[in-house]
Amino acid sequence: MVNKQYYNYGTSRSVIREIFEFGLKLRKEIGAENVYDFSLGNPSVASPDSVNSEVRKLISEKSSVALHGYTSAQGDYTVRKKISDYITRTYGAKASENLIYMTCGAAAALTITLGALYEDGDNCVVIQPYFPEYKVWANTAGYTVTEVSPDYTSFQINFEELKTAITAKTKCVIINSPNNPSGAVISKENIVKLAKLLEERQAEFKHPIFLIADEPYRELVYGAEVAYVPNFYKNTVVCYAFSKSLSIPGERIGYIAVSPDTNGAGEIYAAVCGAGRALGYVCAPSMWQFVAAENLGKTADISIYRTNRDLLLSTLTASGYECVKPDGTFYLFIKALEKDAIAFCERAKKYNLLLVPGDCFGAPGYVRIAYCVSTETVKGSLTAFTALSAEYRA
Amino acid sequence: MVNKQYYNYGTSRSVIREIFEFGLKLRKEIGAENVYDFSLGNPSVASPDSVNSEVRKLISEKSSVALHGYTSAQGDYTVRKKISDYITRTYGAKASENLIYMTCGAAAALTITLGALYEDGDNCVVIQPYFPEYKVWANTAGYTVTEVSPDYTSFQINFEELKTAITAKTKCVIINSPNNPSGAVISKENIVKLAKLLEERQAEFKHPIFLIADEPYRELVYGAEVAYVPNFYKNTVVCYAFSKSLSIPGERIGYIAVSPDTNGAGEIYAAVCGAGRALGYVCAPSMWQFVAAENLGKTADISIYRTNRDLLLSTLTASGYECVKPDGTFYLFIKALEKDAIAFCERAKKYNLLLVPGDCFGAPGYVRIAYCVSTETVKGSLTAFTALSAEYRA
Repeated sequence: MVNKQYYNYGTSRSVIREIFEFGLKLRKEIGAENVYDFSLGNPSVASPDSVNSEVRKLISEKSSVALHGYTSAQGDYTVRKKISDYITRTYGAKASENLIYMTCGAAAALTITLGALYEDGDNCVVIQPYFPEYKVWANTAGYTVTEVSPDYTSFQINFEELKTAITAKTKCVIINSPNNPSGAVISKENIVKLAKLLEERQAEFKHPIFLIADEPYRELVYGAEVAYVPNFYKNTVVCYAFSKSLSIPGERIGYIAVSPDTNGAGEIYAAVCGAGRALGYVCAPSMWQFVAAENLGKTADISIYRTNRDLLLSTLTASGYECVKPDGTFYLFIKALEKDAIAFCERAKKYNLLLVPGDCFGAPGYVRIAYCVSTETVKGSLTAFTALSAEYRA
Repeated sequence: MVNKQYYNYGTSRSVIREIFEFGLKLRKEIGAENVYDFSLGNPSVASPDSVNSEVRKLISEKSSVALHGYTSAQGDYTVRKKISDYITRTYGAKASENLIYMTCGAAAALTITLGALYEDGDNCVVIQPYFPEYKVWANTAGYTVTEVSPDYTSFQINFEELKTAITAKTKCVIINSPNNPSGAVISKENIVKLAKLLEERQAEFKHPIFLIADEPYRELVYGAEVAYVPNFYKNTVVCYAFSKSLSIPGERIGYIAVSPDTNGAGEIYAAVCGAGRALGYVCAPSMWQFVAAENLGKTADISIYRTNRDLLLSTLTASGYECVKPDGTFYLFIKALEKDAIAFCERAKKYNLLLVPGDCFGAPGYVRIAYCVSTETVKGSLTAFTALSAEYRA
């Protein structure tokens, strides 16, 4: 009687959500302070003051109709101009306000971009570990999805497998750097290598292959440089969100940036506008467009995440856990202490540690720790991690 | 190279948008005060003070993380509870917070509902005159669309044609009362008649036929009573938005209410959740969920719209225009003074009157006047309307 696929999407509880619900139950039983819940990627650090002060300013100074009324479907012109200027100023890249499309967050940026690029029979390549919703969104747009298995040494890119994964049917490849769940930042060298591989494949198959760069964690880095992908590969569509940088994930604000050098940029942008229209995105939330435009490049106080990362890293490695040091995001991706990461996460629950098995992200044997929690929770968890490791060694 | 259908949606300029762009040009040439632009349904009345004051309160009192963080995908629980209580209190209808789904406005409510109900080969019936995006959204979900021609005497429902339009393939019928573009409010008698017809057709075809009630104009009425449709027909899904009532169309906030009495209500709600997920709607903008929940039933100062409507109605009917008196919205739907409404609108431009031909809404021969403009603009336009009519009589 209803759409079967959507019904399945609506009823198949995600593993992450199930762990989170378990955490809520556990908090009631043993007290919130005793639960070390690392399951959800919901920022715990307040937005920078400039966010709420911009809201106050807009409400006081801008007319209600201009502030809360429809913007153009692509987004307010002045907002798009500020973003394209920011891209040029910050990354030295070409950009145009006429190729920026404001979205309801990164998820909408991805569903709209995937929809815009899709033609009958197209294939989309994703690189493990990856955010599991990519598959839902690509399948909904119509794509078959090919998964490239992880490069376990560094969580960069398994180039050997990627090479064969890209076929004549491949329309796009999604990358996510800094990466959820591994925290890895793809190095400049690897972006160059990726560009070369895609260019070869384009020449071979005689059609463009688009790189979709999903970048909600761009500013959440601890010293590492995040390459601006369109500077290295012209057929790149950037999907950005202010959710993590400004700690406003609930407000749903982000953008799509089509590079002016992309093959058929105007055509792609028109299809982006059409996809947004067809999926019901009339415009991105207007006030948040204006707030975002005044907060470009700003971040919440991410030194808290850095502190959490460093605390966890030093204790975990000292207690025998293996982990590639993450350069960004607020995730640590550690190797489970037994082959089956699901079983490992079950065992961790005994110590009130709530972790997510890497199987969700296509990287079995690993475990995600979302350390966007209070430093107090991190400190409390350290003995639990040590005890868990001791149990395995006993 | 891109999705052809989406490309077409992105490049086919809507007639309304073209008229609006012409208006912008004209303003520059002859001054804004001399242009009588009735093309767009963008509210011109400020939001009630309670909207911005609630924003201020939330920003001062609620923690940043609770205010701007993700809510659950269906929407914040307390928000959904307030809405379901409001529905019960106001309309005496059953409602459940577990069957309310918060959306990015009415457009998202419709794309999600249409997607959730769609099964292979389904048909959707729309009643002219209707908001043209319905067809885009229904086609995107997969439906064939059947249009029922207008009841020109009252812009209620052409029941005779509706009866044959509904076939074994029909999964849903969209109604919009108060109606854009006619301003008509479907009478209680006609809702009862519609319910009876749908029940007969359901019994005949042995499957549920859903009524999708698109209600962004529910509170924009001038004395008329708007029936709460689920009280009359149980297989109704209500799609509501706060855009017009609170003058916040840019902020994208609304909801889907599945009635607890609907056949397979739980199943439909699960498919709604799945459709929202698949289309990239992670959650509705969080702060606006909280603002909306504190402004249920409130409206901007709609006495301004009433004044505009009355001024236009009295002058237009005195100058020989024919019009069904609209009970709601901020639209007047007048009969063009020649057979071809497009030609009529072209002629109106000479008087700096910007009107939208009814052809866009499936009602040729008629013209939409969006009077959500300043009363000053309305007053200025009256002599232009009179002169235009005089030209036809000359």
